[in-house]
Amino acid sequence: MTPTSSNPLARGWHRAASAFAAACVALLLAGCASVPGGDPLPSWNDGPAKKAIVSFVDDVTREGSPGFVPPAQRIATFDNDGTLWAEQPMYTQFAFMIDQVKAAAPRHPEWANNAVYKALAANDLRGALAGGEKPLLELLVQGNSGMSVDEYDKSVRQWLATARHPVLKRPYIETVYQPQLELLAYLRAKGFKTFIVSGGTMEVMRPWTQAAYGIPPEQVVGSSQGIKFDNNGVLMREPSLAFLNDGPGKPVGIYMHIGQRPILAFGNSDGDLQMLQYTVSGPGRSLALLVHHDDAAREFAYDRTSPFGKLDKAWDEAVRRNWVVVSMKNDWKRVFAQPKP
Amino acid sequence: MTPTSSNPLARGWHRAASAFAAACVALLLAGCASVPGGDPLPSWNDGPAKKAIVSFVDDVTREGSPGFVPPAQRIATFDNDGTLWAEQPMYTQFAFMIDQVKAAAPRHPEWANNAVYKALAANDLRGALAGGEKPLLELLVQGNSGMSVDEYDKSVRQWLATARHPVLKRPYIETVYQPQLELLAYLRAKGFKTFIVSGGTMEVMRPWTQAAYGIPPEQVVGSSQGIKFDNNGVLMREPSLAFLNDGPGKPVGIYMHIGQRPILAFGNSDGDLQMLQYTVSGPGRSLALLVHHDDAAREFAYDRTSPFGKLDKAWDEAVRRNWVVVSMKNDWKRVFAQPKP
Repeated sequence: MTPTSSNPLARGWHRAASAFAAACVALLLAGCASVPGGDPLPSWNDGPAKKAIVSFVDDVTREGSPGFVPPAQRIATFDNDGTLWAEQPMYTQFAFMIDQVKAAAPRHPEWANNAVYKALAANDLRGALAGGEKPLLELLVQGNSGMSVDEYDKSVRQWLATARHPVLKRPYIETVYQPQLELLAYLRAKGFKTFIVSGGTMEVMRPWTQAAYGIPPEQVVGSSQGIKFDNNGVLMREPSLAFLNDGPGKPVGIYMHIGQRPILAFGNSDGDLQMLQYTVSGPGRSLALLVHHDDAAREFAYDRTSPFGKLDKAWDEAVRRNWVVVSMKNDWKRVFAQPKP
Repeated sequence: MTPTSSNPLARGWHRAASAFAAACVALLLAGCASVPGGDPLPSWNDGPAKKAIVSFVDDVTREGSPGFVPPAQRIATFDNDGTLWAEQPMYTQFAFMIDQVKAAAPRHPEWANNAVYKALAANDLRGALAGGEKPLLELLVQGNSGMSVDEYDKSVRQWLATARHPVLKRPYIETVYQPQLELLAYLRAKGFKTFIVSGGTMEVMRPWTQAAYGIPPEQVVGSSQGIKFDNNGVLMREPSLAFLNDGPGKPVGIYMHIGQRPILAFGNSDGDLQMLQYTVSGPGRSLALLVHHDDAAREFAYDRTSPFGKLDKAWDEAVRRNWVVVSMKNDWKRVFAQPKP
């Protein structure tokens, strides 16, 4: 499943992943046991967020410190959309699934009278969401089923190799956040296992998370469509949503897939609230963080009223409970490996 | 979640895990990159099964060999019951769940008229199975729900620390197979990631698989009861079966949790047939193995007609497709770390 340099997707990764790869090599040379001399988080400004992270990591990893946690229990979970890469003007997952729906339309004449499909065909996302998220999700699930998981995997790779972000003007895979790549590498160097816990589907993330984030497929937790092992011995995609890994679904997904409570969780929206609540409900030290998108110049600015990545209840809870709110504008020296054109 | 030496369960593990721990230390000293001098599988007789394993591992791990597989894709999956530890006279999971049902009975006066409960209360397992597995499963699920996942986890640990196998006369945790501990360690030393893919529930396996097999919680795939994040921020067990990781469910569980097709799969019963079929349907080299329980003297002898761990269709398929059938009697020099009393 790991892309190799002989396929176009992997080549597309190289720019986005270059800083990450350099950090990895440096860590490997240092025996993966400690961060080599210098700042492990160079794209983070020296503010309260960075201080809170470094102080937490130091406390839970230093033998003899009051908060010490053995390596096997150093579990860190990261939301994906809006936490590790951009989610505006809509989730990349949706952009991909909508393209699959359009490609599947000739095989679905019954969609001609479907209001959601008609809106999507006219590139009217607001119209497609007029009846709420549910009818849109139903159509997306229908249009992303009926093929084998291997065929679908190929579609994900092909799409990501060519599709470009409409606003940031770059391949989607280059919308990953540089400071978070450094944080993931830093945590792993300190003995953490890093997991993605996303509302997006596992099958749309797993083809690229190893190359982009250094996170292998089995450490990607997400929503999932129904999958069936058919009579020909092939795993086929069913037209159903098997699990929604969002909101109260996130602690359940964590329990099902990871089997341990995280000690660090990083999100950016109300969909992450319960993951953060669950994380800080453990017996020892823990750290809950939220990205606040307040940087229209370098990325996007949105919070309480955004249709995607709404940050409202989780923000209030963060203030109430002293969780770390990371200001993209103030806490991140750099947002992407490459600046906005 | 990892037991420490201060709890009784961990102390109970020591005998069963001692050989495993010794192997681990030896591997660590060797840098975890190669098996130290000598036979990595000392409890396996030099027969066709051992030869097939060593030759396969050599082919997929030696750079330049025709079957070479990069480390990230070296996925090995093992069934648990009957493959890694004993499953007769009934699944250990059932023994535990039945004890939980009995303990919960005072809170369930409605069971007084339940035929399955009455049979269980009279220790009549055959009677409890008279209506098939389904009514029994329903009762087990009811009697193993209504508590938090943390409380349940504690029950699993307490039970395993004291319960003993009725025939083998030892703690259940000492019914793990010594040759398989060596095989797991050998595969990991060769860059494989080892997973459990069991019909048992994840929550009953995860408290002890790290200590017993060196397999961390997130690498344990199994069936699962419904889990809900309640309004108090607690993960509670629901009276439902969320996923049955058996038969055609195993490739689905593998896809959901691991996200890659295994290249080696080891089972022992018809419940493993589809996992093995899925494994050998990959594009490169793969190895499918079955334990055949033909050793009444040292363990148990059963196959085509056993109510637990029935080996019938999978055996026929193994013969047809040249899968490796491991004879417990002939291929294993030793079955347990300690012999049968």
